[in-house]
Amino acid sequence: MKKYVHVCLTPALIDQYPVDRSIVVAIDVLRATSSMCVGIDSGVDHIIPVEHIEDVPPYREQGYLIAGERDGNQLDGFDMGNSPFSFMEPRVKGAKIAMTTTNGTRTIKAAQERNAIEVVAGSFANISILTKWLIEQDTDVVLFCAGWKNNLTLEDTAFAGAMALRLRSHFNAYPDTTLIAETLFQAVSLRKRFYMRSSSHFQRLIKMNLQEEVKYCLRRDTHPVIPIMVGDRLYDINKARDAKATLITDYV
Amino acid sequence: MKKYVHVCLTPALIDQYPVDRSIVVAIDVLRATSSMCVGIDSGVDHIIPVEHIEDVPPYREQGYLIAGERDGNQLDGFDMGNSPFSFMEPRVKGAKIAMTTTNGTRTIKAAQERNAIEVVAGSFANISILTKWLIEQDTDVVLFCAGWKNNLTLEDTAFAGAMALRLRSHFNAYPDTTLIAETLFQAVSLRKRFYMRSSSHFQRLIKMNLQEEVKYCLRRDTHPVIPIMVGDRLYDINKARDAKATLITDYV
Repeated sequence: MKKYVHVCLTPALIDQYPVDRSIVVAIDVLRATSSMCVGIDSGVDHIIPVEHIEDVPPYREQGYLIAGERDGNQLDGFDMGNSPFSFMEPRVKGAKIAMTTTNGTRTIKAAQERNAIEVVAGSFANISILTKWLIEQDTDVVLFCAGWKNNLTLEDTAFAGAMALRLRSHFNAYPDTTLIAETLFQAVSLRKRFYMRSSSHFQRLIKMNLQEEVKYCLRRDTHPVIPIMVGDRLYDINKARDAKATLITDYV
Repeated sequence: MKKYVHVCLTPALIDQYPVDRSIVVAIDVLRATSSMCVGIDSGVDHIIPVEHIEDVPPYREQGYLIAGERDGNQLDGFDMGNSPFSFMEPRVKGAKIAMTTTNGTRTIKAAQERNAIEVVAGSFANISILTKWLIEQDTDVVLFCAGWKNNLTLEDTAFAGAMALRLRSHFNAYPDTTLIAETLFQAVSLRKRFYMRSSSHFQRLIKMNLQEEVKYCLRRDTHPVIPIMVGDRLYDINKARDAKATLITDYV
């Protein structure tokens, strides 16, 4: 049987992919899914990705920290933005976080609405543990790049390529898009500086003085956790089973 | 002022691009836009790209040859399919052709509906003359890949990359997608066989015994013409001015 690694380059293309028979890896390297890995690894109990800004503040009354970003900036009145560093502050340990971002949260929602088997958050911070887990699941994979407002981004595409290369020997069906992403990652690895200089989103963040954050997001295996969606919440996979049981009880 | 070379990887993404202030290059290397170049260079008077199959046969009564392809196959009852070789047969000289293909004709229509400044057909067969002309026009360019049923294809993306590389020194704004296409073309140039083996559409055509056609479509500058849309018709650019005058007269 053919086992696929698909790469979806932007949310605008997601309807081309067999999401409902795949595990979906949500990818927003700069910075949403990186920060999710940091948070989960730093002891956040769970994160609720929220699509619309106005739906976030009500969570505060339920004891949540609220995190919000649009166009790279932290939203006014929010406890935190999208920075990986704010997701490792002491106050996040044991906390619940409701989070909205320009692209990343939309991606998770889009995968869930299309009944993905599982939705997990991927980034350089958890690339090795996540790849290993995907190989064990023996299911089609969709590497789903958040991109930037329905456009492609260099860093998400290259990251999807990095994952695809690691999955290659365990899967047997590689559509053209997957090959294109792999090719990009190989080229980026060889000429890192040139590509970083050329990335529009990287440049956008540099202008905002976020070099250190960007560098941090590109380091590998700094936070070896698998954040996975259970209902509307993102948990560490080791907590997810308990969370699923609770979820079922909630609905009985 | 910033002058852009955009690459649109599939028709599903076209609404991201400023088509109405750009010249659009329609790209369907295997085989529609290659065959269009062959036809125009072989003396076809003009080609009418038609989106729906059922709209083609009525053109026969007006003296047109009719060309039709779906999923790689010539349509029953049509004079010709999508093969570049059929577009160089003696009977095409001076002929008018109405043509429908799986992806290529849709791309041209999509660009026209969005009020592109000009729509031209691009392929390896006319890459040098077309690139030179684009540089002279001093206008934003959208390299618009037909892909395969809203998905990306390796050969269209790589061809867009080849064009972008040639345009690079004359333009100054290169979004991430353009860079990704360029990277792919460079990689393909270095490892042609590997990528050809890996291309799904190439494999599809090989299975249909169309190796020679594919090879022909990948040769450069075999048909140095610029096919350009005037109204609903594709003309050689040298005929286009007269055609435009006629078109205006038609509407007066």
